[in-house]
Amino acid sequence: MARTRARSLALDALTLTLGTLARGPRVRARSGRVMGRTRAMTSEDASSSLSVAAFAIWGANTGVGKTLASAGLARAARARGTPTTYLKPVQTGFPEDSDAEFVARRAGGVSTVGEHAAVAAGARSSGAGFDAGVTRAHTEFAWRRAAGPHLTVSEEGRGVSDEEIVRAMRKYLREFAESARGGASRALALIETAGGVASPGPSGTLQCELLRALRLPAILVGDGRLGGISTTTAAFESLHARGYDIVALVLADDGLGNHKALENILPSGTKVVVLPPLPPEGQADAWLEKSKDAFTELLKTAMEWHENRLKVLRSLPDEAMEKFWWPFTQHSMVERDNVAVIDGRYGDDFEIFDSSLDGDGTIDLRFDGAASWWTQGFTPKLQQELIRTATNAAGRFGHVMFPENVHQPAIDATKALLEGPGKGWASRVFFSDNGSTATEVGIKMAFRKFYVDAGFMSKDGHQRAKDLITEGTGHLPQLRILALDGSYHGDTLGALDMQSPSVFTGPMQTPWYQPRGLFLQPPSLAIRHGEWTVALPAHGLLNDGENRLFVDGKDVHSNTTWRTKAEAFNIDKRLKSPLAKEYRIAIDQALERAEKDARDGKVGPVGALVMEPVLHGAGGMILIDPLFQNILMKACRERKIPIVLDEVFAGIWRLGTEGAWEIVGEKPDISCYAKLLTGGLVPMSATLATTDVFDAFYGPGKAQGLLHGHSYTAYPIGCAISAKALSLYRDPAKNPNLIVSKTSKGHSSAALTELWDESKLKDISDMSAVRRVIGQGCVLAVELEVEGDGGYHSNAAREVVLRLRRHGVQARPLGNVVYLMCSPTTPKEKCDALLSALIEELGR
Amino acid sequence: MARTRARSLALDALTLTLGTLARGPRVRARSGRVMGRTRAMTSEDASSSLSVAAFAIWGANTGVGKTLASAGLARAARARGTPTTYLKPVQTGFPEDSDAEFVARRAGGVSTVGEHAAVAAGARSSGAGFDAGVTRAHTEFAWRRAAGPHLTVSEEGRGVSDEEIVRAMRKYLREFAESARGGASRALALIETAGGVASPGPSGTLQCELLRALRLPAILVGDGRLGGISTTTAAFESLHARGYDIVALVLADDGLGNHKALENILPSGTKVVVLPPLPPEGQADAWLEKSKDAFTELLKTAMEWHENRLKVLRSLPDEAMEKFWWPFTQHSMVERDNVAVIDGRYGDDFEIFDSSLDGDGTIDLRFDGAASWWTQGFTPKLQQELIRTATNAAGRFGHVMFPENVHQPAIDATKALLEGPGKGWASRVFFSDNGSTATEVGIKMAFRKFYVDAGFMSKDGHQRAKDLITEGTGHLPQLRILALDGSYHGDTLGALDMQSPSVFTGPMQTPWYQPRGLFLQPPSLAIRHGEWTVALPAHGLLNDGENRLFVDGKDVHSNTTWRTKAEAFNIDKRLKSPLAKEYRIAIDQALERAEKDARDGKVGPVGALVMEPVLHGAGGMILIDPLFQNILMKACRERKIPIVLDEVFAGIWRLGTEGAWEIVGEKPDISCYAKLLTGGLVPMSATLATTDVFDAFYGPGKAQGLLHGHSYTAYPIGCAISAKALSLYRDPAKNPNLIVSKTSKGHSSAALTELWDESKLKDISDMSAVRRVIGQGCVLAVELEVEGDGGYHSNAAREVVLRLRRHGVQARPLGNVVYLMCSPTTPKEKCDALLSALIEELGR
Repeated sequence: MARTRARSLALDALTLTLGTLARGPRVRARSGRVMGRTRAMTSEDASSSLSVAAFAIWGANTGVGKTLASAGLARAARARGTPTTYLKPVQTGFPEDSDAEFVARRAGGVSTVGEHAAVAAGARSSGAGFDAGVTRAHTEFAWRRAAGPHLTVSEEGRGVSDEEIVRAMRKYLREFAESARGGASRALALIETAGGVASPGPSGTLQCELLRALRLPAILVGDGRLGGISTTTAAFESLHARGYDIVALVLADDGLGNHKALENILPSGTKVVVLPPLPPEGQADAWLEKSKDAFTELLKTAMEWHENRLKVLRSLPDEAMEKFWWPFTQHSMVERDNVAVIDGRYGDDFEIFDSSLDGDGTIDLRFDGAASWWTQGFTPKLQQELIRTATNAAGRFGHVMFPENVHQPAIDATKALLEGPGKGWASRVFFSDNGSTATEVGIKMAFRKFYVDAGFMSKDGHQRAKDLITEGTGHLPQLRILALDGSYHGDTLGALDMQSPSVFTGPMQTPWYQPRGLFLQPPSLAIRHGEWTVALPAHGLLNDGENRLFVDGKDVHSNTTWRTKAEAFNIDKRLKSPLAKEYRIAIDQALERAEKDARDGKVGPVGALVMEPVLHGAGGMILIDPLFQNILMKACRERKIPIVLDEVFAGIWRLGTEGAWEIVGEKPDISCYAKLLTGGLVPMSATLATTDVFDAFYGPGKAQGLLHGHSYTAYPIGCAISAKALSLYRDPAKNPNLIVSKTSKGHSSAALTELWDESKLKDISDMSAVRRVIGQGCVLAVELEVEGDGGYHSNAAREVVLRLRRHGVQARPLGNVVYLMCSPTTPKEKCDALLSALIEELGR
Repeated sequence: MARTRARSLALDALTLTLGTLARGPRVRARSGRVMGRTRAMTSEDASSSLSVAAFAIWGANTGVGKTLASAGLARAARARGTPTTYLKPVQTGFPEDSDAEFVARRAGGVSTVGEHAAVAAGARSSGAGFDAGVTRAHTEFAWRRAAGPHLTVSEEGRGVSDEEIVRAMRKYLREFAESARGGASRALALIETAGGVASPGPSGTLQCELLRALRLPAILVGDGRLGGISTTTAAFESLHARGYDIVALVLADDGLGNHKALENILPSGTKVVVLPPLPPEGQADAWLEKSKDAFTELLKTAMEWHENRLKVLRSLPDEAMEKFWWPFTQHSMVERDNVAVIDGRYGDDFEIFDSSLDGDGTIDLRFDGAASWWTQGFTPKLQQELIRTATNAAGRFGHVMFPENVHQPAIDATKALLEGPGKGWASRVFFSDNGSTATEVGIKMAFRKFYVDAGFMSKDGHQRAKDLITEGTGHLPQLRILALDGSYHGDTLGALDMQSPSVFTGPMQTPWYQPRGLFLQPPSLAIRHGEWTVALPAHGLLNDGENRLFVDGKDVHSNTTWRTKAEAFNIDKRLKSPLAKEYRIAIDQALERAEKDARDGKVGPVGALVMEPVLHGAGGMILIDPLFQNILMKACRERKIPIVLDEVFAGIWRLGTEGAWEIVGEKPDISCYAKLLTGGLVPMSATLATTDVFDAFYGPGKAQGLLHGHSYTAYPIGCAISAKALSLYRDPAKNPNLIVSKTSKGHSSAALTELWDESKLKDISDMSAVRRVIGQGCVLAVELEVEGDGGYHSNAAREVVLRLRRHGVQARPLGNVVYLMCSPTTPKEKCDALLSALIEELGR
C-alpha cells in the first residue's frame, strides 16, 4: 500500500534541503495589486529588518510626554553618535502640531513630510533620503484638526487603511536601514504612536492592534500624576495582552512616587526610568537638558535590549537542536539552519526570524500554509476577541474540576456544539484534550452501545455485565471496527489500533499494536484533467479482488465523472445513480462476509464504524467520495453498527460546513471534534453523542458509567474559547465567508463560500505536472505526477513548496502533495492570491 | 483485590447524599482567629448574599465621575423605591472629601462612618443599622491626606490588610441584606472603589485584585475626554482579565463621541450609557437632574442584569443534567440539587453558588479540597501573574506548530523542566497534552530503548528493524512492563493496558484491554497509631505466596517502624537495613522468574518499569515505601530495564520536591509531568528523557524517529504558563513554603516545608475511627476504619466530607479515605486551620 499520511508532512519536511533558495539572494517580487485590493504577499511587504533597533513609543494616556520622551531619546542618541530617525505615522492638528518638527528641532535634525501629510500642510512632500549624521524626523499621514484620527478622517476624509499605514512604516524603516547599512554603530528608529495605547487609528482600529503586524518592541511612557498608576498599569496590560515586548517604562515623577509603585506591579525585570515632572509649555529645552541622564539610561537599556534580542533569536535553533524532542521528527535529519525561529503569529501568518538577510536578519510574515497542523481559524482581529474571552475565563475560573459541577463556559461550549456540529442529532457532549482522546472516548461509547443493541448486555445491564466479567460465565466478544484504509485518528495506542498497518504502527513505534479493523478501500474523488472524477478501488473494497465495482468496466466513466463540483457533491441526486447501487452491493457483500466470519468465530463482530468524513487529511489529502460514505453509514445503521465520525480535521468549517457529516448527508451516532474547536489557541476536544448512546451508560451501577476523564476535562479557559470560536465562525457579521441560505424545508443552512476558484482548479488539474486537485472548504491540495509510486520519496512537492517561499508562503509538503490551508475566516482575496502564486510556481 | 482509585473519587461523590446538611440550616461557625493571623474559614466570612443586587463602581481614571455616577444611581433608585445603600470602603482626604457624604446628600440619605474612618474624622463611629426608606452611605476605612491610600498608610499608619477590607465589606453587605429581607423590591448596594481600576489599595495591592475575592459585578465609569477611549478600553481590559462581569459602561459625552467608538471596541452586548459633560465644581445637583434619564436607564440595566444572573445560576444545574456527559460519572446517580454551580475560583477556593440560603442564594468561597483533580498550584496573586504571562503568549503567538520550529516559550518551558524535575538526568523534553498521553509516549520511548539495549535492534538499526518487520525474518518480541499493583496512568487504551485488572479496565469500559504488566504488590507506608509503619504485602510481591518478606516474621516490627518521618524517609540509612536486603532478594527473585518465563517463551520480556513514585494517588492515596522503589529501580537499572516514572500526580512539588524521584533517591530514564506543570490553568504534559533514550531514536531513517504528535504539541500558551509556573514554585521570593538548603556536596537543594504538623497527624492516627494517616507535601490523607473491606462502599468518609462543608471545605471522599490537598504555595497557616477542622470533625 503506497500511502501517504499527514504525518509524513512532518517527516518530509525533514529532508527539505533549503539550499540556494533559502540562503541565496532573496527574489524580491515586485509589489503590486493582485485581485483588486489584496496584494500578493511579497517578502518586502512583510519583512522587517533587525539591523535597525526600532522602538514604538506608546503613551499610557495623552499628554504624558510621548513626544518629549522621543525627543529625549533622539538627543541621547545624537550624543552617542547613533544614527537615528524618528517617524510619526499618524499626526493630527497638523501642521501646527508636528511632533516630528518638535523632535527634529531638539535633536538637531530635519523634519520631512510624506505625501499624505503634505496635503494637510498644504505643501509638497519633502525629503526622500537619509543623510548620514542628520536625524530625520518624518510625518507620514496627517490631518488638520487636532482630534483623534478616527474623527478627523470622518471630517476631512483622506482615510488610510491599516495596511497602508503598516506598509508605509515598513517602507520607511527599510529605507532607513538601507541608508544605515555598513555604519559603525547600530542605528535607532523611534516610532511615536498617537494618543494612548488603545486610541483608535484612522480606520477606527485600536492602535495597539493596528500596529500589531509589526510587533515593534515598546517603550511605554507612563503617567506620574494622580491616577497614573492605574492608567499606566492598564495600558501596560493592554499592550502586553497583544503580545508586545515592553522594553521599558519611562515616566515623570510628580512627587507621588508612581514609579516606585509600578516597579512592584509590573512583571519583575521591567525597567523603569524616572523623569523630572513634565515641563510647562515652552520649557521643554530646559527639561530635556535636565533629563539627559535619564534618557541616556533609557537609550542604553533599549539598545542593549535589541542586541540581546538578536543574540537570543540567533541562539534559539541551537537550544532547540540540543533540548527539544520534536514530534514526528528524525533528529538526525534536521539541519540546524533549517529550524524555523517563530517570533510570533499574526492571523494566518507566522512571524519568522530569518537570519540570512540584511546582516542581522529580518522578521518576516509568512503564510502558515499548514494552518499549524490544521488548527487555525481566525484573522488577527477575531483572534484578539478570542484572547479577550480566554483571559476573562482565566481570571474568573482558572481551572475547576468538572464531574458533577457546572460552570458557565462549559454550558456555553456544550450548547454551541449541540447547536452547531451536533445539530439535529447529538444531545450530549463529553470533553477531553485532543483528537486522539476524543476518538478513544468515541470507540468506548460505540462499543457499549453495540453490546446493548446486540443484546450482549441488557440496558439495565450493570449486573449482567458484572456477572459476565467476574464470574467467568461468559465473555463479551472482542469487537472490531469497520474503517477505511488510510484513515488516521491520532497516536495514542488505542487510536493506532483503529488504523491499518503502516510504518506508523510497526513495533518500532507502537509496541502493542494490533489492527482492530476491517479496513475498506475507499473510492476517492478529485479533479483530474478538468473533471471531477471518482477513482474506484481497483481490487475491490477489501483489496482482494472481491467486492469490486463495475466489474465489467463498461459504464465506469459516465458514472464517475462530473463537470462541476456541485454535481459531484449532489448526494440526493447521486443516490439514484447506478454507482450508488454498485456501492451498496459491494458494501453489503463485505459486511455480510464480516458477519459470517463473526458467526464462525474467526473474528469478533464489527462493533462500530469509525471514519473520517469527506477527507483523509493525514492520509494524503484524499477526498473520499461522499456518496460512498453516505451509503456505508446507511448500511451500518441498518445493522445497528454505531457510527463514529472522526471530524477532528474535517469538522467545524474546515471543509466548508460546521459538521463534515453535512456534506456526506448522513448523521452519526458519535462524532469527535478538536483542532478548530478552540480557534487555534489551546488543546481541547469534544465527543458528541446521541441520547441512545448516552443511555447505554445510564443505569443503576457506578461501573456502568463511562469511567474516563482527564485532569483538565472541560477546563473553563478551553470551554470559553470554544464557545466564542464557534460563535465567531457562524456569525455572518464576523465571518465574511459565511453564506446563509434557506433550505427547502425552511430551515436556514450555512456554509462557507467556495474559497478556491473552481475554474482555476481545473486549469491546475490540466497542467502536466499535476495528477489531481482538490479544493474543499479551507483546503487546497494538488497531487503532483511523480516517477514511480510517489509517496514521500518524491522531491517535486518539496521544490514547489520551497519556491512558494518567494511568495511569503511557508507550506509543508505531504508526500507528493502540495497543500495550502486557510482559515474559515480568511478573505477570499487571499485565497485567490495563494492560488495565483501556486499556479505561477507549478508552471515553472 | 480491594482497591480504591482516584477515579473512585468521582464515583463516590455520586452517592454523596447531601441531605439535611446541605439543605438544612447552615451552621454558622463563629469567626475567630485560629493559629495567629489566619482565620478558620467560616461560611459567613466567605459568603456573599445574592438577595441584594450589589455593584462595584469602577473608574477608568480618577476624576471621571465615579461619585457622581454613584449619586445618580442612588437617586434613580430612590425614585424607583429601591432600598439602597452605598459603601465607600476606602476613602482618602477624609473627612473633607467624603464621597459617602456627597452621595447621602444627593440621595436624601444619611452618612455613617466606621471605626477606622472615625479616627480620621476625629469623631466616633456612627450608625450601625439600616433604616427602611433611608439610603445609608457609609465610609469604612479612611485617611486624612488626599492621596493614594498606599501613600497615606505610609504617612498616617493605621494600615489595613486586604482581608480586613474584604471582610468589612462582606459584613456591611450582609447586614444590609438582612435589613432588606422580606422587602417588596430588590435591594441595591453600590460600592465605590477608589481611584482607577488598577490603583493600589492601602496595602499596595491593586484594587482590582484586592476586591477580586468578592467579584462584584462592575459598572465602569469611562472617560469622555481626549485620550479617554484608550484609558477606558485599557481599564475595561484590566477588569475583564481578572474575571469580572462588566455590566455597563457609563461615561460623559465631552463632544468627542468616545461612547460611540467604545461601543464598537468593547465586547458586543456591553451596555453603554451616555451622560452629559461632567459639571464644574458646585454644579453637581443640576447635572444630576439633567442626567436623570440616563441613570434611570443605567439602574434598569443593572437590576435586570442581576435578575438575569440569578436566573442563569438557577438554570445551570438543569442545563448540566440535560447536556453534559461528565467524566467518571453514573448520571443516574446524580441528583440535580447536588450539582455544584461554580461561579469562579479564587486561589485555593471555589466560588460556589448555593441556592439554599438567603432566599436568592449566596456565592460562597469553599476550599477546593481535591485541588481540582490535583492540578492547583497558586494563591490568587501568583495565579494573576500566571494569567498575565499566558495572555502575552496568546497575543504574541496564538498557536504555532512545533516540529522543526522553535519559539521562546517552548525553550523556556523546556529549560525549566530540564533544570527542575529533570535536573541531573534528563536532556530532552517531549511535549503532549495530558498525563495519559505523556505516559503512552513514555512507554514508546522505553520499549525502543529496551530493544536497542537488549540487542534486538542495532543502534543504527533502521535497516535492521525494517528487515525484521517487513521481511518476516524475525519478530520483535512483544514486551510487557513491570509495574506496581494499584497504579494508575490515565484512561486512554494504552495507559489502561499498563494497569492491573479492575472494574476500570473491564470490557464495559475498555474493550481491547489486555493487562500488559507483571504487577508487584508494593509495601506501603503510613502513620498508624502514632508511628510511621511499613505494611508488607502479606502474600509476597506477586501475591502468590512467593517472594515474601521476613517470612519468619521475627523482626518485622523493628524493621518496619519509625518514630519520625525523617527516619522513615532516610533512604541512605535505610539502604543498610535488613529490610533493604529483604526487598532486594524478593525483587531479584521476581525478576529472575520473569526472565525465565521470557526465555521459556511463556511471555515477553519485561521491557520497562512503569511506576508512580512515592504515592499511588488514584489508587487510594497510598504511600509506597520509597526504599522499596529505590531498590526496585536499582534492580531494573542493573538489568537494563528502562525506568519510566509517572510523576503526573506526584511530581512538581506536589509531594514536597520538584521531582518525586528525589524522595525515592534514584533517577529515572524517562519521567512524565502534567497537572501542576501548568499551575492549574490549562492542559499540557511533558515526557522527559535521558540522552541514551533519545539516542535510541536517532539514526538514519525517518521511521526510526518517534512518530507521535498532537496538534497543539508544545503550544506557546501552555509552554509560557509552564515556564512561569515552574519559576514561581521555585522562587523563594514568591513561594513562602520553599526551604532551600545546601546539600553535603555543596549544591543547593529545595523542598517545601512540612505543611502538615507531624504531631497532629500522629494524634489523628490514634483516633479510633482512623486506620492510617499520611501527610506528604501538599497531600493529607486519612483512611478511616470501616466495616468489611472498606473500598468505596463505606459511608464514613462521605460523612466527614459533608461535615467539612461547615468549615468552608469542599472535599471529595476517595473510598474510605478523606483527603485534603493544598497548593505548593498555600500558607502553612491555612493547612493548620484545615487540620484543625479535620480533627474536629473526625472526633465527632
